[in-house]
Amino acid sequence: MSSDRQLFDEMPKPTSTPMPVDLSKYSKRVLLKTILDRADGGLGLIDQRVVVGGWVKSSREVRKDSPPAAQAPVGSDAKQAAGGKDVKCVEVFQSRIPFLRTIIKVFGGNTAHTKEKLESILPKVAAPAISILQISDGSSISSLQIIVDSSIAPPSQLMPTGTCILAEGVLQKPSLQGKHALELKAERLLHVGIVDQDNYPLSKKGLPLARLRDCAHFRPRTTTVKTRSSLSAYYSFSEIIGWVRNGWVIARNGFGSRGYLLLLDVASVMKIRNGLNQASHNFFQNHGFIHVEVPIITATNTGGLPGIFQVSTSRFSAKEHKKEEPVSMDDTKHIDLETIKLSIAEKSKKVEELKRSDSNKEALAAAVQDLHKTSLLAAELEARSKSKSRSKSKTENVKEDDGFFSNQAFLTTSGSLHLESCASALGNVYAFGPRFQADKSESKKYLAEKWMIETEIAFSELEDAMNCAEDFLKFVSSWVSENCYENLYFLSKRVDKTILDRLNSLASTVFEKITYTTAVEVLSKVTDKTFETKIQWGVALTEEHESYLVDEFYKKPIIIYDHPKELKPFNVRLNDDGKTVAAFDVIIPKVGALIRGSQKEERLDHLSKRIKELGLRKDQYEWYLDLRKQGTVKHSGFNVMFDVMVLFATGLNDVRDAVPFPRHHGKIHN
Amino acid sequence: MSSDRQLFDEMPKPTSTPMPVDLSKYSKRVLLKTILDRADGGLGLIDQRVVVGGWVKSSREVRKDSPPAAQAPVGSDAKQAAGGKDVKCVEVFQSRIPFLRTIIKVFGGNTAHTKEKLESILPKVAAPAISILQISDGSSISSLQIIVDSSIAPPSQLMPTGTCILAEGVLQKPSLQGKHALELKAERLLHVGIVDQDNYPLSKKGLPLARLRDCAHFRPRTTTVKTRSSLSAYYSFSEIIGWVRNGWVIARNGFGSRGYLLLLDVASVMKIRNGLNQASHNFFQNHGFIHVEVPIITATNTGGLPGIFQVSTSRFSAKEHKKEEPVSMDDTKHIDLETIKLSIAEKSKKVEELKRSDSNKEALAAAVQDLHKTSLLAAELEARSKSKSRSKSKTENVKEDDGFFSNQAFLTTSGSLHLESCASALGNVYAFGPRFQADKSESKKYLAEKWMIETEIAFSELEDAMNCAEDFLKFVSSWVSENCYENLYFLSKRVDKTILDRLNSLASTVFEKITYTTAVEVLSKVTDKTFETKIQWGVALTEEHESYLVDEFYKKPIIIYDHPKELKPFNVRLNDDGKTVAAFDVIIPKVGALIRGSQKEERLDHLSKRIKELGLRKDQYEWYLDLRKQGTVKHSGFNVMFDVMVLFATGLNDVRDAVPFPRHHGKIHN
Repeated sequence: MSSDRQLFDEMPKPTSTPMPVDLSKYSKRVLLKTILDRADGGLGLIDQRVVVGGWVKSSREVRKDSPPAAQAPVGSDAKQAAGGKDVKCVEVFQSRIPFLRTIIKVFGGNTAHTKEKLESILPKVAAPAISILQISDGSSISSLQIIVDSSIAPPSQLMPTGTCILAEGVLQKPSLQGKHALELKAERLLHVGIVDQDNYPLSKKGLPLARLRDCAHFRPRTTTVKTRSSLSAYYSFSEIIGWVRNGWVIARNGFGSRGYLLLLDVASVMKIRNGLNQASHNFFQNHGFIHVEVPIITATNTGGLPGIFQVSTSRFSAKEHKKEEPVSMDDTKHIDLETIKLSIAEKSKKVEELKRSDSNKEALAAAVQDLHKTSLLAAELEARSKSKSRSKSKTENVKEDDGFFSNQAFLTTSGSLHLESCASALGNVYAFGPRFQADKSESKKYLAEKWMIETEIAFSELEDAMNCAEDFLKFVSSWVSENCYENLYFLSKRVDKTILDRLNSLASTVFEKITYTTAVEVLSKVTDKTFETKIQWGVALTEEHESYLVDEFYKKPIIIYDHPKELKPFNVRLNDDGKTVAAFDVIIPKVGALIRGSQKEERLDHLSKRIKELGLRKDQYEWYLDLRKQGTVKHSGFNVMFDVMVLFATGLNDVRDAVPFPRHHGKIHN
Repeated sequence: MSSDRQLFDEMPKPTSTPMPVDLSKYSKRVLLKTILDRADGGLGLIDQRVVVGGWVKSSREVRKDSPPAAQAPVGSDAKQAAGGKDVKCVEVFQSRIPFLRTIIKVFGGNTAHTKEKLESILPKVAAPAISILQISDGSSISSLQIIVDSSIAPPSQLMPTGTCILAEGVLQKPSLQGKHALELKAERLLHVGIVDQDNYPLSKKGLPLARLRDCAHFRPRTTTVKTRSSLSAYYSFSEIIGWVRNGWVIARNGFGSRGYLLLLDVASVMKIRNGLNQASHNFFQNHGFIHVEVPIITATNTGGLPGIFQVSTSRFSAKEHKKEEPVSMDDTKHIDLETIKLSIAEKSKKVEELKRSDSNKEALAAAVQDLHKTSLLAAELEARSKSKSRSKSKTENVKEDDGFFSNQAFLTTSGSLHLESCASALGNVYAFGPRFQADKSESKKYLAEKWMIETEIAFSELEDAMNCAEDFLKFVSSWVSENCYENLYFLSKRVDKTILDRLNSLASTVFEKITYTTAVEVLSKVTDKTFETKIQWGVALTEEHESYLVDEFYKKPIIIYDHPKELKPFNVRLNDDGKTVAAFDVIIPKVGALIRGSQKEERLDHLSKRIKELGLRKDQYEWYLDLRKQGTVKHSGFNVMFDVMVLFATGLNDVRDAVPFPRHHGKIHN
C-alpha cells in the first residue's frame, strides 16, 4: 500500500482539539478565506490551532544562523522589486545545493524518489533552516504564510511552486518582517504533494509562454499569462528571463525586446467568470425566462455557416455503408407497408371482437400474437422507408451515415433555431451552453468551443430584443462590480486599471442606437483616419470601424441595427425596404461586438425564399419551417459571447486565456 | 411584402390606451400569469383593456343561435368527462363543415392558402358563431379563455390547437357557464399564426405516440406524452382513439387494450427542470464552489468507456492522410531543431548587442528579420516533430487526424478528469454541461447527450463527498418543493400523486450508508423474491437489486460505498483491502441510482498501475498523471444525472421526455 510519493500519507490524523474557526463543510480543513478575509485580517485568530491546505505560490528558505533582516524586503511594489532577492525555488535548489543535484543526476530515474533516498543516506547535508511558504487554496486572493522548520520537512521538498501542503499548526504574529498580518507555524504536515521540478513546466525559467496554454491542465493550478507592452505582438516567441514577484516576470521576445509579463492569479479570472455566469442566470430568472437545454448534437447546420464539426462513432466508407443498407425499397414495397397497416387495423378489430365475445382464450392469444408480429413488421418497414427517404436527400461531399444516428450529425454552431421552438411554447427562454465552429482563425476572440448565452422572446420585435440586451449588460456589469469587487480590484491593480470604471460606465450609460446606414455615413465622413477596409454601404463593419464608432465618435456603447441582409443569417426578418434585415450588434469598448441579435423571420414565404437564395439544404430546415407553418409568432432574441464578456470584465486580451481548457485549431492535448 | 399567411400582419398596431396591467418587459403584451396568477384569480382586472398572446390549447365553437346551456359542462374531472362533448377542432372541422373540406381537397395545394381564397369566394358559408379559445403563453399553468366573434375571424381559422393568437380586448366576467373566473372578449386580432391541420402531427387522431418524440420541435409547443396503465408496455404501438380534455386521451395499444394517456403540459416539466437547475447552482454557490466550464471536445477518452463519439471536420482515409504528412523527420532533423534553437540564442544576442551599440539601424533591422525567420522555422519544425511523436502512439482501429485538431478528438463522456485539474487550484469547483455516450441502449435512463452536474472538492475524502451529495439532494428537493410548488402540484394531480411526498421525504430523511459488501449480504438473505441476476460479491448491482434495498428493505434513500474495483472507473482510489475502491452510488426511490461519486486516486503509482491493468491508452492520460506528479492532493467528488433528477421530480418515466430535444440511437431529426 505505501508509496514513496506518499511520505506523509500514513501520518497521524489531526487531533480532535476543538477548532474555534469554522471548518470547510466538505473537507476537514479551514478555508484560507475564513482566516484571511476577516475584517481584522485574521488577527483575532492568533493562537488558534487550525488545519489548512493549499498549493505553494512562492517560497524562500531562511538559514537558522542567518538573521532575518538580511532577507529582501517583502511587500514592495512588483516593478520596484524587479531587482529584489526573492529567489525562485529552482534557483535555490540549483545554487544552494548544486552538489546534491549532481548526485541526483548520477542516480538517474525518478528525481523525487532519489531525493528521498539521498536524504536517508545524507541526512545532515543541509544546515538547519526554515521554509517560508506562501500558500493559496483558491478561496481567497490573499495567501497565507506558513513557517515549516527543517526538522519537520526539508525545504527542498516544500519550496517548489505548486507543492501541495496540508498542515496543522498555530496561527501567530509574523516572525519575520513583512506584509503579513499573521502566519501559521506548522507543527505537523498531514500531506505533502511534491513537485518534480525537472518535469514541471511552470518551474522552468526558459519557458516559452505559449507552452502554458499547451499545458492547460496545470494552468488553473498556478497562473495564466497576461502580456504587457510590445511583447504581446510576438507572444509565442517570448522567453521568461527573470523573475520578479507577485506573478510578474521579465521576458524577452523573438526580436530581443524586453518587457514585463504578469503571471496572473487564475482564481480571480475564474471567479469573475463564475460571477458573470451567476449574474446572467439571475437576470433571466428575475425576468421570468426559463432555462432550456438546446441540443449539442444536431442534424441542422444551425446558423448556416461553413466550418462545422461532424460527430460520428466510427469510420464508414460509402461502399461499406451500402452493404449494410436493407435491400432497396421500391414503390411496390411501399404499398406493402400501407397494406400491412390496413391488415393491422383488421387484426386489431378481430382481437377486439374476440375479447368482447370472451369465448376462446387460445384464439385470442393467437390473434394478439399475430397482431404483435404484424405491428413489429410494419414498424421495421416504416423505419427502413424513412431511412431511405433521408438518404436520398444526401449530398456527395459529406460523410455518410455512420450507423449511430440515422443521418448526419453536427456539433451545434448556435442554439438559436432550437430555442425558437421552445420560445414558441414557453414565451421567454434562454440557454447557456457550448457552441462550436471549426475555423482555423487565429483571432483573439475565436475559440472552436465557445460558451454562449442565447435568448429568445415570443411576441417581440427588434426593439424589444435590443432593450433586453442593453438591460442585460447593465445588470450583469453592475452585479459583477458589486459581487466580485475584490477580484476585480485585484486585477485592476495588476492587469488593467480601467476594469472597474469600464464596468460602472457600462452599467450607467444609455447605449446609442444607430442604423447600419447611419454608421456607414458617420464612417464615410471620417477624414482624420484611414481604415484598412474602405467603408461603403453593403460592406461588413470591421473591428476597426466599430472601435472608431465606440471609442472615438460616440464614446459610449452602441447598438447598430438594420444591417444589409447579405451580412446576416438566413433567418433574420426582412425589413420593408427589402434590402435590410432586423438584426443588431451591441458594440462595447475594449472588446467590440459582444452581443448579436435579431428579430427572426416568422413569415414562411420569406424564409423559404431566403433558404433557396442562399442555397442552403432545405431538408435540414424542414422542422424549422414547420414552426412557421404551425402557429407562427413574431419573436426576437440575441446571443452573448460569454468568453468575450470575460475579457471585458477581466482585462485579458485573448479568449484562450479566459477558459480553463481552450480549444482551437491544432491544439488539443487533454 | 405582403404574404397570404400574414393576414393580420398589416393590421393597425395596438392603440396607446394606457394599460393598468403590467406589460411584459420585452414584448408589448401582458403575460397571462400577470392576470391569472393573481390572488383574486384576475377578478380585480375586470373591464381592463389588455393585449395578450399565446397558443390555442383547446377550443370550441358556439353558434350564435344555440343556447350556451347546450354546451358540455366545463371543468369536470378528466376521467369523468371521458364521454363529454368537448370536441377536438379537427372533428369540428370535419363534422361541421365537411363540404368545405371537400372543396379544399379539390383545389389541392396549400390548404391554408386555399381556405383563405375560399373564404373570399364563399364569405357567408358558416352561420354567425363565436370561437371560445383556451390560450396559454407558457407563463402560467392556467389558460385564459378568449371569445372571438366570427365577424373578427372565422372559427375554422382560430380553433386548431397550436394556433398563435395576439389579441386586444377587454377582460370580462365569463359569458358562458364554466370554471373560468374571467375571460377576454377580443376586439381585435393583432396577429394570427394559423395551423395547417393536414400537416400538423399533433392535430391528427391516429397519431402513433412515438412520433411525438420524432417531432420534438413541436413538442415544447404543445405536449409531451405520459402513458398510464397497461399501455406503457407497448407504448410505440398505441393509437389515440378518443379525446377527453385537459390533455387526456383514450388510446389503444397493439394488443387492443384501452387506457388513458395524458398529453402533458410541457411547460410544467420545463419549469421544474429550470427550477432544479437554479436550485443546483444555488447550492454550490452558497457553499463557495466555483462554476467552471470543462471542455466538451477532448483528446482524452474520459471515463475510459467504450462508445465514444468522435469529432472531425472532414473525412480522411489513412492513405490520404499520409500524403499530407510532412516528409519523415528522422533524428538528424531533430538535431537540426536543437541547432536552430542554439542559433536563435546567438542571433538574439547579436540583436541585443546591435541595439545597445545603437550604431547601424539597417544592420539591426536585418538581424531582427533574420532572427524572426529562424524563430518561425524553429516553431514549424517543433510543431512537426510534436505531431510526429503523437502520431506514433496512434492505434489502428481509430480515425486518423482530420487536419483540424492535431490529434483525435472526442466528445467528452465525463468532465470529472478536467474538473480535478481545476479543483487542484480553486479548491471546490463544479460544472454543469452536456456529456456524451454512444450506446445503442433503449434504457429509459439513457440519452446519447445528457446533462450532468459534476463537482470536485480538494482536500476531501470519500465521506466528505458522500455528505455533500446527501446535502445537495436535500437542498434541491426542498428548494424545488417550495419554488416550483404550483407546477409540482399540477403534475401531482395528473401524472404521479406521490411527487410532492417523495420530494419532501428526500429532503427530510437521513440517508442510510452501507458498504457494497453489506448490500450483497442483505440481498443474499432475501428469500421472498428471486432476482433476475443472482447476487454474489463482485457482481454489479442491478436496478432490481437497488430497488429492493431502497423500496423494500431500508425504505429510504441509501448510499452504497466501497465497491469492488472492477466495477468502477480506473481513477477511483483503492482502499486498503486492495479489493474495493472508495466509490459510492446514491440510490433513491423511483429512479434508482441518481448520483455516482468517488474519492479519486491521488497516488501516482496506484493510478499508473490501474491504467496499465485496464489496457487504457497511457498517452491520453499523460496530462492527468501529471496532476499526481506535481503537487497531488486528496480529493473527491460526484456527478448528478440531471435528466434523471427531472424524472424524479416530475414523475415522468423516460428521460427522452425530460429534455426538449432527446438524442439517442437512430433518432436525429433537427
